[in-house]
Amino acid sequence: MKLGWIGLGNMGQPMVTRLLNAGFDVTVYNRTRSKAEPFAQLGAKIAESPRDLARQVDTVITMVSDGATLEEVLYGEGGLLGGVREGQTVIDMSTVGPEPVQKAAAAFAEQGVKFLEAPVSGSVGPAKDGTLVILVGGDEAAYEVHKPMFDVLGKASFHFGENGQGANAKLAINLMLGVFLQGLSEALVLGSKAGLDRATLLNAIAQTAVAAPIVLGKTPSILADEFPAAFALKHMEKDFGLALDVAKKSEAALPATSASHQTYVAAKANGLGDHDLMAILSQLERLSGLK
Amino acid sequence: MKLGWIGLGNMGQPMVTRLLNAGFDVTVYNRTRSKAEPFAQLGAKIAESPRDLARQVDTVITMVSDGATLEEVLYGEGGLLGGVREGQTVIDMSTVGPEPVQKAAAAFAEQGVKFLEAPVSGSVGPAKDGTLVILVGGDEAAYEVHKPMFDVLGKASFHFGENGQGANAKLAINLMLGVFLQGLSEALVLGSKAGLDRATLLNAIAQTAVAAPIVLGKTPSILADEFPAAFALKHMEKDFGLALDVAKKSEAALPATSASHQTYVAAKANGLGDHDLMAILSQLERLSGLK
Amino acid sequence: MKLGWIGLGNMGQPMVTRLLNAGFDVTVYNRTRSKAEPFAQLGAKIAESPRDLARQVDTVITMVSDGATLEEVLYGEGGLLGGVREGQTVIDMSTVGPEPVQKAAAAFAEQGVKFLEAPVSGSVGPAKDGTLVILVGGDEAAYEVHKPMFDVLGKASFHFGENGQGANAKLAINLMLGVFLQGLSEALVLGSKAGLDRATLLNAIAQTAVAAPIVLGKTPSILADEFPAAFALKHMEKDFGLALDVAKKSEAALPATSASHQTYVAAKANGLGDHDLMAILSQLERLSGLK
Amino acid sequence: MKLGWIGLGNMGQPMVTRLLNAGFDVTVYNRTRSKAEPFAQLGAKIAESPRDLARQVDTVITMVSDGATLEEVLYGEGGLLGGVREGQTVIDMSTVGPEPVQKAAAAFAEQGVKFLEAPVSGSVGPAKDGTLVILVGGDEAAYEVHKPMFDVLGKASFHFGENGQGANAKLAINLMLGVFLQGLSEALVLGSKAGLDRATLLNAIAQTAVAAPIVLGKTPSILADEFPAAFALKHMEKDFGLALDVAKKSEAALPATSASHQTYVAAKANGLGDHDLMAILSQLERLSGLK
Repeated sequence: MKLGWIGLGNMGQPMVTRLLNAGFDVTVYNRTRSKAEPFAQLGAKIAESPRDLARQVDTVITMVSDGATLEEVLYGEGGLLGGVREGQTVIDMSTVGPEPVQKAAAAFAEQGVKFLEAPVSGSVGPAKDGTLVILVGGDEAAYEVHKPMFDVLGKASFHFGENGQGANAKLAINLMLGVFLQGLSEALVLGSKAGLDRATLLNAIAQTAVAAPIVLGKTPSILADEFPAAFALKHMEKDFGLALDVAKKSEAALPATSASHQTYVAAKANGLGDHDLMAILSQLERLSGLK
Repeated sequence: MKLGWIGLGNMGQPMVTRLLNAGFDVTVYNRTRSKAEPFAQLGAKIAESPRDLARQVDTVITMVSDGATLEEVLYGEGGLLGGVREGQTVIDMSTVGPEPVQKAAAAFAEQGVKFLEAPVSGSVGPAKDGTLVILVGGDEAAYEVHKPMFDVLGKASFHFGENGQGANAKLAINLMLGVFLQGLSEALVLGSKAGLDRATLLNAIAQTAVAAPIVLGKTPSILADEFPAAFALKHMEKDFGLALDVAKKSEAALPATSASHQTYVAAKANGLGDHDLMAILSQLERLSGLK
Repeated sequence: MKLGWIGLGNMGQPMVTRLLNAGFDVTVYNRTRSKAEPFAQLGAKIAESPRDLARQVDTVITMVSDGATLEEVLYGEGGLLGGVREGQTVIDMSTVGPEPVQKAAAAFAEQGVKFLEAPVSGSVGPAKDGTLVILVGGDEAAYEVHKPMFDVLGKASFHFGENGQGANAKLAINLMLGVFLQGLSEALVLGSKAGLDRATLLNAIAQTAVAAPIVLGKTPSILADEFPAAFALKHMEKDFGLALDVAKKSEAALPATSASHQTYVAAKANGLGDHDLMAILSQLERLSGLK
Repeated sequence: MKLGWIGLGNMGQPMVTRLLNAGFDVTVYNRTRSKAEPFAQLGAKIAESPRDLARQVDTVITMVSDGATLEEVLYGEGGLLGGVREGQTVIDMSTVGPEPVQKAAAAFAEQGVKFLEAPVSGSVGPAKDGTLVILVGGDEAAYEVHKPMFDVLGKASFHFGENGQGANAKLAINLMLGVFLQGLSEALVLGSKAGLDRATLLNAIAQTAVAAPIVLGKTPSILADEFPAAFALKHMEKDFGLALDVAKKSEAALPATSASHQTYVAAKANGLGDHDLMAILSQLERLSGLK
């Protein structure tokens, strides 16, 4: 199976590297071509456009930063839709919500092309280690065919049903992520205002039932009060927005999610959007006059 | 060191059992005497009142359900304060917030008695297994003296400083617990409204960075949709209230905590107070018209 | 000036009636033609399609229930865009948010047609009485030309600047409406739970600084506990959603708006969407176990 | 009827002035005696302590800033309780929540003294104009006897039943006040972020159904962006806290109230507590990066 890969950002780079190291035949495309070139040394071919890429491979994977970029890649000039042929599969691993993937699935189906969405839970570290969790929606047979590839990229993959359901599962899980870090931050703010030593409190938290991997993983950056982006706060804000759009349409009322979302919006408005999502702590500290 | 133990509820029973099994000399008191009697067979003595108990031991531990009960035990007729003597230590392991423990510390200090608060994170299971996390405030020397006892009851103990700080740490951690289960529940409600299979979603969550021990621990009861109380929802509501009282006094603004608290209040108002705190899921399902 | 009017729902009917009574030459179109016919007796002509209507008049006003219907009217088969000619004006008085009106303004500008959005604050009663408040965005000269018409429909009109700003003003004001009725409802729920007589509490409220016209206007329906729709709750939920979309894009954090919005979503999910927005009280009563 | 008045702050001063101007025989007491002296020139007598005052009059009114001050006045050294005699009435017009007034009612009942709570809605302006709204709990006959006095102080008074119910009514109404100003502020923030002219938006709001007297009354200070305290933000925060305490005990879930309360807590934490409560707008502007 010849693979084509579009999108060589923070996530795409380690994922393609794993596929190449595992022996897959991969052709890559990136809008900024210079990011693609290092992969030639690892054995990748380089395509000139999404359309060009589609003509060279069996399956195309897209991994881009947002819905607007995906639109461009799929439907823009030189886009994928103009290059695909019957029997191919397109797999979008970005996080763009259910509507864009349902629209894409319909558009590619008209060309006889199968479309899967396969967004991932996990950021740069798990992408390098191959320990992402992959949440798939779309044709089950196509999922089964590509499972060996998913197994290189992640430690587990789940098929949630028709197109849109992988996207929905991703949003549900990311909602938890955002709320958990908000909860952690509120606990730390309460602690600081009450005079507790933060390191001791984090040590205690690490022993309790709320010691989620993400809590343990963020502890060093909290203690250093430095938040270089593993997963940028603005992306979490975007995902909260997508989750609340699904909630609005499906009539799900989510009080803590929406309260947390507003805090992430405030963080963006106060210049924290490009920091790691853990910088939500800084926003909550400001809210209580701590910074 | 002769220990006295007051309060043989769901938590007190397994904790006393561990101390007796570890060879400690323990005298117990419980308002309903019949609950104390089985412990005589394990080697415990039984006291007739808190005051009577105080006269027989070196250190008294209290583990009761709320602040009103603690008031009665400490200051009521036949209460501890009337029986203590200089050099003793009183340790309250209940969760009652910082004010009652600061008040108690002052009252016992006048009698030359040291007072520690040592609330625990963890419910019945960890109480049986000795894997509680113990959060201590008060005299550090008294903490060190009693550390061997804490090591029987818990897997870790932390000294947070003066009286009230152990209580504050407990509230900060419980706040996280309540917010995390609210976040989990909102994710599951979103999933259900969007048509996701709940078991598959929980399987996926279990692989991700939000898979806190409490999330994994509650998964079977979620799948069974049965919530017998390990930690009653009404107690979580109470602890949220205590945390928000500390927040109000110390001027900490906690948006997701207060949004979650209101959901727990609603759950109580709708008859879920005596269920496990995981029944917050049921309340959120009703809120979105699912039940 | 010959006017064309599209949309004869609860709002459109009394508005057209006022224009006809004031002597305006009005041609009407409604998807369900039977709703248009009574207006022939008041002197209105009836058009067969939006396109047909556009060919007969100078200015077209649209007053429809949501963005999807507006899309159909403007761009669908037989839509307005296919019938307009240079020099005409199109005025949308629906509440659809800033994006659809900006899109429409651009589309009509290409045909040499001016486009105003002029959403209104006020429901059926003010529409009958001509006491609506009209919030205009778009070409100022076009606004001035049509001010005499606005003066028949409303007691005041305001020009907020370019296209989108009238829509934004409408959302800001409706956000207040939704939050105010939520605040009123929470006060009444607190009163009921605390044992206060509701009629006495409403009498007292009517004397205070929070006695907004909407509060006084809704009091009879609250006392009767009957909420026939003057402004359907589902439309308020929609407007909250549009306001929060603008907030998200412009990075405005709105804690009480989002908390209220979630309550309206819950009300919809519990079957209250077609009731008056004051039925938010019923939702809050259920939330606290009162119903 | 000889009246005694305790508490000559911003509210007490204009209220006593009205009573003296209406011909009432008034003896006053204030902790800082210099504040009492100007009233001698208006015909008031001055007492040396609450106890001394009680011995000289038939009815004592207290109007102080918070629960701790009321405790001191009632039960402290030289307090009222030590000076009252059977047949007298004590009326507290402060806002302290239901518990302190129920406690006071019980304590004075033991002395054969009737106790009413009669908190007021309205700040300094209405206190001067005699347009307060008076919310009474306690013995109905005592209310009727003092109605002529209430009619001098306010434009309306309401009897809500037993002690605590006047206090509860006050909290319900103040909750609306706090939520309304939060809603107004969020609308203004949304407007500013979207580029609307604030003066035009306020002009439009003034014509709509949300134009509560408090909205119209605060408009000049909003336009001036100056918030000298008519009713200090910290007092609104306190009243929100009291309302949420009643809500917690009576199991009322109040989502927008609690979201608003957290914003007021944040405003206090950011140094806005002594400004007018309308400074909640400044806090929300900061939250969205506007200041």
